[in-house]
Amino acid sequence: MATLGGHARRHKVAVIGSGNWGSAIAKIVAENTRQNPKLFEQDVQMWVFEEQVMIPKESKNYRPGSTPQKLTDVINKHHENVKYLAGIDLPTNLIANPSLEDSVRDASILIFNLPHQFIAKTCEQLRGKILPFARGVSCIKGVDVTRDEVKLFSESIGSKLGIYCGALSGANIANEVAAEKWSETTVAYDPPQVDSRHPTPLGSPSASSTNLAAKGKTSPERAGSIKLQALPEGYPALNHENMKKLFHRPYFHVRMTTDVAGVSLGGALKNVVALAAGFVDGLGWGDNAKAAVMRVGIQEQVAFGRRFFPDSFQTATMTEESCGVADMITSCSGGRNFRCAKISVQKGLSIEQVEKEQLNGQKLQGTSTAVEVNTFLKAKGMEQDFPLFTAVYNILEGNKKPEEIPDLILNEEDDDTKNIKRARM
Amino acid sequence: MATLGGHARRHKVAVIGSGNWGSAIAKIVAENTRQNPKLFEQDVQMWVFEEQVMIPKESKNYRPGSTPQKLTDVINKHHENVKYLAGIDLPTNLIANPSLEDSVRDASILIFNLPHQFIAKTCEQLRGKILPFARGVSCIKGVDVTRDEVKLFSESIGSKLGIYCGALSGANIANEVAAEKWSETTVAYDPPQVDSRHPTPLGSPSASSTNLAAKGKTSPERAGSIKLQALPEGYPALNHENMKKLFHRPYFHVRMTTDVAGVSLGGALKNVVALAAGFVDGLGWGDNAKAAVMRVGIQEQVAFGRRFFPDSFQTATMTEESCGVADMITSCSGGRNFRCAKISVQKGLSIEQVEKEQLNGQKLQGTSTAVEVNTFLKAKGMEQDFPLFTAVYNILEGNKKPEEIPDLILNEEDDDTKNIKRARM
Repeated sequence: MATLGGHARRHKVAVIGSGNWGSAIAKIVAENTRQNPKLFEQDVQMWVFEEQVMIPKESKNYRPGSTPQKLTDVINKHHENVKYLAGIDLPTNLIANPSLEDSVRDASILIFNLPHQFIAKTCEQLRGKILPFARGVSCIKGVDVTRDEVKLFSESIGSKLGIYCGALSGANIANEVAAEKWSETTVAYDPPQVDSRHPTPLGSPSASSTNLAAKGKTSPERAGSIKLQALPEGYPALNHENMKKLFHRPYFHVRMTTDVAGVSLGGALKNVVALAAGFVDGLGWGDNAKAAVMRVGIQEQVAFGRRFFPDSFQTATMTEESCGVADMITSCSGGRNFRCAKISVQKGLSIEQVEKEQLNGQKLQGTSTAVEVNTFLKAKGMEQDFPLFTAVYNILEGNKKPEEIPDLILNEEDDDTKNIKRARM
Repeated sequence: MATLGGHARRHKVAVIGSGNWGSAIAKIVAENTRQNPKLFEQDVQMWVFEEQVMIPKESKNYRPGSTPQKLTDVINKHHENVKYLAGIDLPTNLIANPSLEDSVRDASILIFNLPHQFIAKTCEQLRGKILPFARGVSCIKGVDVTRDEVKLFSESIGSKLGIYCGALSGANIANEVAAEKWSETTVAYDPPQVDSRHPTPLGSPSASSTNLAAKGKTSPERAGSIKLQALPEGYPALNHENMKKLFHRPYFHVRMTTDVAGVSLGGALKNVVALAAGFVDGLGWGDNAKAAVMRVGIQEQVAFGRRFFPDSFQTATMTEESCGVADMITSCSGGRNFRCAKISVQKGLSIEQVEKEQLNGQKLQGTSTAVEVNTFLKAKGMEQDFPLFTAVYNILEGNKKPEEIPDLILNEEDDDTKNIKRARM
């Protein structure tokens, strides 16, 4: 095989998922593989859950009287995901593929961007079908919280497939990114060093410090039975510089970090805070109060990361990166958790009623995260250490009122004042 | 003198300034002196620049056909600042005083809350008229930036009067605070330890580490000629606990810090960032882009504090406190710098034209701060280290366009990515 710019091989990229965020990320990635031919194979496979679609009127490919077509055929012919990202031109080197197995064939980089409820089943189908040395990046927002542990989706994917998986998250409303309106994102990528002759067990102490979850329990999947394989010789390194080349665009600025836990937690916990911001805004308390809720929310995100991911979490991920403070700002500006919570206070309705009225059967992510986080904190006896998260839960449950938020979070303030911690500079 | 709760004396408080923010803070302070009779004398003097006023119709004290009255008389009779804070009940123990000299008589705590252009003249009038051991708190937003140095208003006041002066700043729109809508604030207070027998020169190495300014130049006022006096025996200590009791209310949550520089810089530099956020929003780039500008702005605030106040500045003041991230959020939500910058892009007008149209002759603070900060950075050869601040300046000057902001700030991102600094946890 001829070497290309010093590399015998190039990375093949597959995107698993094709909703609006999946398609927007696939568009970015395909633009970048084309621009970096020494690193990446040009064609990017995107797994599309096949369905019959009608081309909608807002698409320039709409023709009156046309019949339903396969979504993959439409994407590959018109280079437009007419169902989930109508009106956006996709690169011609982005190939829609209805076969999950075929879409990942020979791919050394797997980008996961599908609804979290499909992760388990999809990984099951993928097991044994992917390159054993592939690397993953999860763009799925949220974390998997149970009574006993907090697990990152990147970690679930990694352990199910026996590969390393990083994470991407930021202040990234999908349709704005797809329209090439400028935004920033954060990519966390920190695979352990592995020697091709001595694979490293995932989750072992010698593996990456990011490969951890909420302390106390170690799930069987993370018990070291999986061996992480090194990239074979000939591939360009998958370091921060090259990962950035896969995601960075003039309109999509990437900052790299090693903090997978922080990046994942930011995208999950902000939804709880957005509910609190909506409650306060619904009371008509103004911009000061809303900013205060967001500030306290960021503090509790930081406390959560420190407490439950002490070996890998970095405060600055939350306070200084797009996946933290910026995503919080965006979500508390017009996100649907914020909007629905605000409406619930203004109209005196329960969140469930507002969901029904506003979301056409869909559910808010913030409410389920608030309940899950509370279950976890309660089991650990730590509700009082996260007064804002606890307040949101209690408001959702009808135990407390939005008006009580300032009083409910005051203890935290007092503690902070009495014992000012200023170890950081 | 009888001791009260262990203290022979109580602190007398004076508020210098009576605009809407001055009156709102005076209201808070008077509520707290009444509630803490062992620490504070009940009556709070508020210096009011005397003027003849008509009681406006929105006041409940309005009577048809009434004639102009002295503002101090109106405040002391009706307990309402009808000119600057109409409709808000002031505590009856808040006394309006038209005499600057008389208002500060015997006051051991001086709260400065007046437009910054009046600081110098007011301090001149106060010199020699105040208790030599008084302590100050400046609620004046902004910093005094010249080609050669960045000086905090608290520091100017302190050095002019020969006293220690802290600072208060936060996400505090005055009218919302006055209406008792919940908000948070940050109070920075860090006086050096002084022995009554051996006064400490202000600005000497033994004085507080907050008593510093932009490195390189030491102004004559800070050269150590002023001796800081200890509180005489019998007064309650002016520590964080007691300072908090002066400002904290159920609707106004106080967090104390020692970082006077950080608290002061937050309130000044956010106005520059708010212009950038307005430019981007005016382009219709959406919430992602606006959040990105705010994130980068916070980063530049941090970089500014670290660079020019290295001995006292704390990153967390900007990233975790009301005076930092929360004030940034509020200012970029609906503050007038943000609004005018947005309108200027939407209508294709210069900022000066928008100021004329929208502000009835008033000037934006962000534009003058942007120019001052640029003059200072340019003189130091550091424009490129603060690409967002520099971009705002160049957009205001017509050298660059708002559309160029992503490209202009990109270098910073690249540098950060290549050399990830994660010293903090």
